[in-house]
Amino acid sequence: MDKRLYRTPYAAIVGAGRTKFGELWYVNPEKLLTEAGERALESVDHGLRRKDIEACFFGSFLNQVTNKLALMPGYMSRELGINIPMTSIEAACASGGSALYNACISIKSGEYNVVLVGGIEKMTDRVNKIIDDMMFACDSHEFDAGFTFAGLYAAIMARYIYEYGRGNDKCKEALAQIACKNHHHAVNNPYAQYRFEITVDKVLNSPLIADPIRLLHSSPITDGAVAVILVKPELAKKYTDTPIYIVASSQATDDISLYSRASMTKMFATQMAVEKALKESKLSIKDIKIAEVHDCFTIEELLFLEDSGFVEKGKAWQVVYESYNSFNKSKHIPYVNNGCEMIVNLGGGLKADGHPIGATGVRQVYECFKQLRGEAGGNQVDIDGDLNASLCHNIGGTGGIANVHILVRDL
Amino acid sequence: MDKRLYRTPYAAIVGAGRTKFGELWYVNPEKLLTEAGERALESVDHGLRRKDIEACFFGSFLNQVTNKLALMPGYMSRELGINIPMTSIEAACASGGSALYNACISIKSGEYNVVLVGGIEKMTDRVNKIIDDMMFACDSHEFDAGFTFAGLYAAIMARYIYEYGRGNDKCKEALAQIACKNHHHAVNNPYAQYRFEITVDKVLNSPLIADPIRLLHSSPITDGAVAVILVKPELAKKYTDTPIYIVASSQATDDISLYSRASMTKMFATQMAVEKALKESKLSIKDIKIAEVHDCFTIEELLFLEDSGFVEKGKAWQVVYESYNSFNKSKHIPYVNNGCEMIVNLGGGLKADGHPIGATGVRQVYECFKQLRGEAGGNQVDIDGDLNASLCHNIGGTGGIANVHILVRDL
Repeated sequence: MDKRLYRTPYAAIVGAGRTKFGELWYVNPEKLLTEAGERALESVDHGLRRKDIEACFFGSFLNQVTNKLALMPGYMSRELGINIPMTSIEAACASGGSALYNACISIKSGEYNVVLVGGIEKMTDRVNKIIDDMMFACDSHEFDAGFTFAGLYAAIMARYIYEYGRGNDKCKEALAQIACKNHHHAVNNPYAQYRFEITVDKVLNSPLIADPIRLLHSSPITDGAVAVILVKPELAKKYTDTPIYIVASSQATDDISLYSRASMTKMFATQMAVEKALKESKLSIKDIKIAEVHDCFTIEELLFLEDSGFVEKGKAWQVVYESYNSFNKSKHIPYVNNGCEMIVNLGGGLKADGHPIGATGVRQVYECFKQLRGEAGGNQVDIDGDLNASLCHNIGGTGGIANVHILVRDL
Repeated sequence: MDKRLYRTPYAAIVGAGRTKFGELWYVNPEKLLTEAGERALESVDHGLRRKDIEACFFGSFLNQVTNKLALMPGYMSRELGINIPMTSIEAACASGGSALYNACISIKSGEYNVVLVGGIEKMTDRVNKIIDDMMFACDSHEFDAGFTFAGLYAAIMARYIYEYGRGNDKCKEALAQIACKNHHHAVNNPYAQYRFEITVDKVLNSPLIADPIRLLHSSPITDGAVAVILVKPELAKKYTDTPIYIVASSQATDDISLYSRASMTKMFATQMAVEKALKESKLSIKDIKIAEVHDCFTIEELLFLEDSGFVEKGKAWQVVYESYNSFNKSKHIPYVNNGCEMIVNLGGGLKADGHPIGATGVRQVYECFKQLRGEAGGNQVDIDGDLNASLCHNIGGTGGIANVHILVRDL
């Protein structure tokens, strides 16, 4: 294996736990988060107790409107029975990634050795009102103008098709294939909300949400929680023989409003955060063999392929189309460009694993942790010898914020 | 002056700005926060530009329900025209203190040299619904049982009077005097919401909110924003000749629910956070000459005097009563106990300066920064030669979280 000199890692991950994603009507949010936290603690090979945790960072978006609860630190202090510093962070759909980002910085500061990061969202009870609530993550003028959240992404998708795939059905097919791929990946993920295959035809004939976005281009409304345990890198081997290291943690912000940005078909926050993360980790995008990407709508996974530099601008739909048709019989369907392979959203992504908003950024890290350790069970990726680096990409709103983390098995 | 060996400071404050507190109906929340941020930048003696800021931390509580906005980083990226990492933190009434706490850690990590911390709340538009919204900061069972937020503090106040002041009118008077003192302090504060005196009689005859809490025991519903600029301590003199150092930053959590705690008349989170802060700063509570204390209801300022160790348990009301009657002709009214003096809430505290929730923790630091630099104008405390250390105490909910910061002028 190609061993590189990474910078000192921010942190090591030594445990991870999650709940099933789906409609979990009969569990309180604080119990759901506690369940994920307990599973993360139990997963630590050499043992870790609640009282060993020195701080917590939580990510959640709509907990006030959906669950009428705030002050998560007070809830979790009671549930966990510990009185340590706890921070609750909101960054719309990037709440989990933002919690993780701040947790990494806190370990780097030397203030804590052991930190729990939890993401939570409990949304399905309020499914009919959440369409409006989602617009809190966008500029209020866009709400006033009649946009829904899907409507804004529909504008992005329409513009992308207009600029790069006009008159070519393959571009529209590619945008459907992303959903099919992610559903395919979720079949072997026991925690996923949707463990069934869908076809391109089914996507393209599913109900129209906001033209050209259809129901099956869209990630669902989901309940769920995920937690990971971070420790100071030097202490990692005390807790497990196989820690996974976070060698890059980056965050960038951009205008919340789509209308005021320079481009509709490029997420500058993604580009900035990926560039910083690759620089920190001394890696190239070509070194990233697996990635968890923010596919709230399929267009966003497509944009990531371009914004990250994996594919040149305007060509991602061709890479998706050709990759999908070449590999749709394999367990995981990689994207292939210029001889480089990257498998994206191995557990189903937001589309099929589910999108409990505040949990998503942490779920991405959970997935990479399990895959890098060879613990993904029936869903384990089959590139073991060549697998070292993975990337997690979590954005908020229509790209007002992006968090990127790079995880490696061997330093 | 007694020079002590503090530990290395977390950060130095080199600038601070705020808006007027009150009913600011015609300003958007993001504009209000930007206004505070711009004033903080302008206040930096040797100059600091927007593009010098490397990260932002924001504190806000009810922005989603009151203003229908979330993803503050996306809003502020646009308003400030910068694409740096930004984090939005919610910890109910301690949102500002929690933002500051995490900002301190981020500077300690070495990740950033210059950080803006902003607190914002815009509440008055929703004054009639906010009574329910406030209960997000409390356990949902307490809401279901019919408690309002004031009702929970009324239970605390009733229990305190029962345990320590039963049958003694002076105890009830003391709880009114705290409000009178804070209004007295606000008269010379040009930014305060209420710049007028009130009397003990007026407090005790004001409308009953939740027995024994009356209207004038209570902090108001307020709009406002505050920002401070933190820099790495070693760089402080580049920006100003008179930086103020943060030598302690602590946070502790406790059960969100009042019913599950060991005591109704003691805030354990305050006790833990104060103890840690004093230990970090190598100071005793007796060294603290001025303090900004979380007086959401006057009972909470009273409890702080005991929880912090300034007065022994059950005696604070006597100290308040005697101090108020001795000093109520002076510009500021100090608390005096065993020969030690501490002036609390020099600008009027939450009661009279106002309580725009997410801004309060940052406003406390603003006040101490100005006082320690001798820049508090007509409200400047008159103990210049003896003034070095100040403490800020910000709690969330009914004490589910507490943040304490200690600021000093001379290291």
